[in-house]
Amino acid sequence: MSSATPTSPSPAETHEYVLTVVCADAPGIVHAVTGAIVEVGGNITESRQFESGTTQRFYLRLQVRTPASATELEAALAPAVERFGLEHRIDEVGRPVRTLLLGSTATHCVNDLLFQVESGHLPVQVPLILANHPTLERLAGFHGVPFEHLPTTGPGGKAAFEDRVRQAVAEHDIELVVLARYMQILSPELCEELAGRCINIHHSFLPGFKGANPYRQAHARGVKQIGATAHFVTSDLDEGPIIEQEVLRVDHTRSPQELMAIGQDVEARTLRQAVAWFAQSRVLLDGARTVVFR
Amino acid sequence: MSSATPTSPSPAETHEYVLTVVCADAPGIVHAVTGAIVEVGGNITESRQFESGTTQRFYLRLQVRTPASATELEAALAPAVERFGLEHRIDEVGRPVRTLLLGSTATHCVNDLLFQVESGHLPVQVPLILANHPTLERLAGFHGVPFEHLPTTGPGGKAAFEDRVRQAVAEHDIELVVLARYMQILSPELCEELAGRCINIHHSFLPGFKGANPYRQAHARGVKQIGATAHFVTSDLDEGPIIEQEVLRVDHTRSPQELMAIGQDVEARTLRQAVAWFAQSRVLLDGARTVVFR
Amino acid sequence: MSSATPTSPSPAETHEYVLTVVCADAPGIVHAVTGAIVEVGGNITESRQFESGTTQRFYLRLQVRTPASATELEAALAPAVERFGLEHRIDEVGRPVRTLLLGSTATHCVNDLLFQVESGHLPVQVPLILANHPTLERLAGFHGVPFEHLPTTGPGGKAAFEDRVRQAVAEHDIELVVLARYMQILSPELCEELAGRCINIHHSFLPGFKGANPYRQAHARGVKQIGATAHFVTSDLDEGPIIEQEVLRVDHTRSPQELMAIGQDVEARTLRQAVAWFAQSRVLLDGARTVVFR
Amino acid sequence: MSSATPTSPSPAETHEYVLTVVCADAPGIVHAVTGAIVEVGGNITESRQFESGTTQRFYLRLQVRTPASATELEAALAPAVERFGLEHRIDEVGRPVRTLLLGSTATHCVNDLLFQVESGHLPVQVPLILANHPTLERLAGFHGVPFEHLPTTGPGGKAAFEDRVRQAVAEHDIELVVLARYMQILSPELCEELAGRCINIHHSFLPGFKGANPYRQAHARGVKQIGATAHFVTSDLDEGPIIEQEVLRVDHTRSPQELMAIGQDVEARTLRQAVAWFAQSRVLLDGARTVVFR
Repeated sequence: MSSATPTSPSPAETHEYVLTVVCADAPGIVHAVTGAIVEVGGNITESRQFESGTTQRFYLRLQVRTPASATELEAALAPAVERFGLEHRIDEVGRPVRTLLLGSTATHCVNDLLFQVESGHLPVQVPLILANHPTLERLAGFHGVPFEHLPTTGPGGKAAFEDRVRQAVAEHDIELVVLARYMQILSPELCEELAGRCINIHHSFLPGFKGANPYRQAHARGVKQIGATAHFVTSDLDEGPIIEQEVLRVDHTRSPQELMAIGQDVEARTLRQAVAWFAQSRVLLDGARTVVFR
Repeated sequence: MSSATPTSPSPAETHEYVLTVVCADAPGIVHAVTGAIVEVGGNITESRQFESGTTQRFYLRLQVRTPASATELEAALAPAVERFGLEHRIDEVGRPVRTLLLGSTATHCVNDLLFQVESGHLPVQVPLILANHPTLERLAGFHGVPFEHLPTTGPGGKAAFEDRVRQAVAEHDIELVVLARYMQILSPELCEELAGRCINIHHSFLPGFKGANPYRQAHARGVKQIGATAHFVTSDLDEGPIIEQEVLRVDHTRSPQELMAIGQDVEARTLRQAVAWFAQSRVLLDGARTVVFR
Repeated sequence: MSSATPTSPSPAETHEYVLTVVCADAPGIVHAVTGAIVEVGGNITESRQFESGTTQRFYLRLQVRTPASATELEAALAPAVERFGLEHRIDEVGRPVRTLLLGSTATHCVNDLLFQVESGHLPVQVPLILANHPTLERLAGFHGVPFEHLPTTGPGGKAAFEDRVRQAVAEHDIELVVLARYMQILSPELCEELAGRCINIHHSFLPGFKGANPYRQAHARGVKQIGATAHFVTSDLDEGPIIEQEVLRVDHTRSPQELMAIGQDVEARTLRQAVAWFAQSRVLLDGARTVVFR
Repeated sequence: MSSATPTSPSPAETHEYVLTVVCADAPGIVHAVTGAIVEVGGNITESRQFESGTTQRFYLRLQVRTPASATELEAALAPAVERFGLEHRIDEVGRPVRTLLLGSTATHCVNDLLFQVESGHLPVQVPLILANHPTLERLAGFHGVPFEHLPTTGPGGKAAFEDRVRQAVAEHDIELVVLARYMQILSPELCEELAGRCINIHHSFLPGFKGANPYRQAHARGVKQIGATAHFVTSDLDEGPIIEQEVLRVDHTRSPQELMAIGQDVEARTLRQAVAWFAQSRVLLDGARTVVFR
């Protein structure tokens, strides 16, 4: 993988880059990578690494302040890339990640994400919201985000929606697709195409429930904790690598409707956190797991 | 249900009773019950009630300060009991509940419970610990609690253990049996006999995992929250009415062994809380759910 | 205190009322109150009570389903009100509480409150937002809430703002004033006039910090928990009765700016919760403390 | 600072070391340190670093698996130590840290620490408990830990106690002193001598309270969160660098006594966590703050 956004700054400027590296574990990787950073006069301002006992792979995330351009840093890294077979990625710290939101009728996740973007707390830009219901149009309009409504009902409706997703991804050079309560199962093909860059959110309980009407089931069992899981989308429904989970306490007095309201709150917060970490290049895939350098 | 421990105090004393009432919901129950309390010169110091939309049953828990004896309170309540078909229970606030612990090799839950008892934070007395391994003997000895070791291996081992449980329950007039990581499945017959007075603790995850080695599975999926569920034991394994659930956050750096250590901590705290609420008559069964008046 | 909104429904309808009662503690109060409820054919659907050891006062909150009108319930309660000197209040469950928001430049609390109102999760209506800066105008407009901008700078600016508050409270029959990051200290006179119906939110830390720039101080001390406190406003700055507190974990890597972003999130959630409980008549004053029947 | 425990293993063995480095921030440090690790055939298994914007200092913690001895690693690091003026420390991962407990009458923290040690979850060994009351003797005995009782009352009592502390620190080569509810203020001299290796635990509230009987004050103000702070001891009472903080939710129904029981629970957990991180060399001082590489 090469630099996402090569830039050619004037020499006087200082840049801050985030560099992520994934490779088979071996001695000397950090020494080689930091050698390249020394070479371009860089200073490491944040560093996290992880050696996976599961996959024997090595994960590194660095933030580097340097007068060099991304291209120069890239060149300095080339020997290490060659020697260790590094998958790597260089990006500017804080660069807004181009994000496509897919929605339906629920507004809580989209409202939270757009508010966080507008507040400057979420390094994301949203060039488009696609939804299979018109509900989100007003909210999108308020935040000045283009909105398209494409029903998924009728023969070929879902396939047409997915084609529009593909087109939008290409058109806007989308880096992240967020299923913000889109409520439709993506086709295995689209899951495959968006692997590692599509995040979904769903409710979670202790213990788990399968099937329809989970809040009603949770009520029937009298669960005491309502949670949400944000995960990468895979063709294995709701079983992709987990990025973030959060829970809130409830008790027997809560109706299924109230459990749902609490669930929506925890969904919005959990999704927001997962998107933030992704946008900061803090989420790396380790087989069926994620490494989250928070 | 009648008074658990009728007492005949001298008239000058003041008592504090906890009164729990369960019945089909109907208008006038609280008025009738509080009328009985007025009759014996009682003052309500704590009150919680719940009308179950699920079962249409009514749940009431009162704490009452009164110069009257339990027998006198019982008598005053008799008309209401008759009229509304009340299942009720009178107990002294703070009376230690006679509790039998069943254990195996794990010490974390038993250590926590006995320490809390000794610190005076848990209104429980433990006349006996039964275990199918000798591990807990020293700990029991330190706290001055009688301990018996009865292996469950070999033909008839488990049945003999359960017979000893039955005997101990009768002998010590046991009110609560706690499976403090006993790790054996109770026979359906014993589950039935101990219905509503036997609490188990087990690990819980978002999402749930079935089968062996759950911490290894949780590690493989990269879960971010480790939890525990304390529940009443029923013959439906690990599916009894939930009393309490707690969770702790973890991340990708934790090994399966560390997840287990964290899981043990959350198990101990969750079980302790469930036992405390039970001992304070705060846990009532509402079909497959519990009402917890915490 | 008498009924807030007497209504005269047709006899066939069923109403659900919330009844709150405060008085000096004495035997027989619950019996008398529930007697009145039996008299109007009412059924208690939720009940919480508390006897304060601090003030020797008694607090009761009931939800009652009845075919009777508020006026009829009021009449039935009259003997108990007389006998026990009850301060009481009858309201319809779920009736939106008329709430005036005071704001300044920060948007996070107002956005959260208005979104929750619109989602139907917060039983509140907002007839007006008053602010000493124009920042909130767009947000108010999106949610269709009237907005007025009144600068507090210049001689007499603050007094004029407070007079407009008084006027708005009268005009819209305001039941709750929320300082949603208004950032101005109210005059002692206005604090007095709004006693028990004006809620403020501020950041809180372990341990506490006084003075300017608290997030910078929190950073300098390396605090690990960022919190917020929602409280009733009194003339004793930031020391009014606490309604709700919430915390979030942070670590040494967070900059003062990031601490502030996290602080804003916890402020919004804490304020929302306090407003929800107030709007549901769950918050009662007990001297310098609150009783929160959540 | 040099290696804490130099060892001379047979060449066939593999060791895992934790290496911590503190110095003025400069480019090239990580490259130089990792170069030394490559030189001894080491592999980095865990890495955390932090550049403090407050002090312009650089903090690094590495875990390294290597066939080399600590002495060999030390030698390989010498040029980097010289060049960057590194304060560094090499230790074996998992080596139990020699810890002196100071106690008084409260048992909750000592019970929790000793149980965790015995369970193998806390890499600590306790050669001695010193206390100014005899209460802890039985608990110490159960865990096989030597115990000394030295009253601090009477003229010179406190000075004598502190002299015994100094002596014990020397005698057992103590690396960490834990004030496990010792409840006495250490003299400024002793604070100075134990700087950076003495941890205290105290209750914390939102907002904070000074003075006696804090749980009574917390009750009077109706706080909703009870917390604890574990910090390094300095002569500025209860104001040393914070290592860990934890909170638990409470409500108006809790008596001051119950708040205290909850507070004890959160104290024990918070102290245990701080001790664990210290014992794993995860806590580094950054001026008045700590860097905690958890």
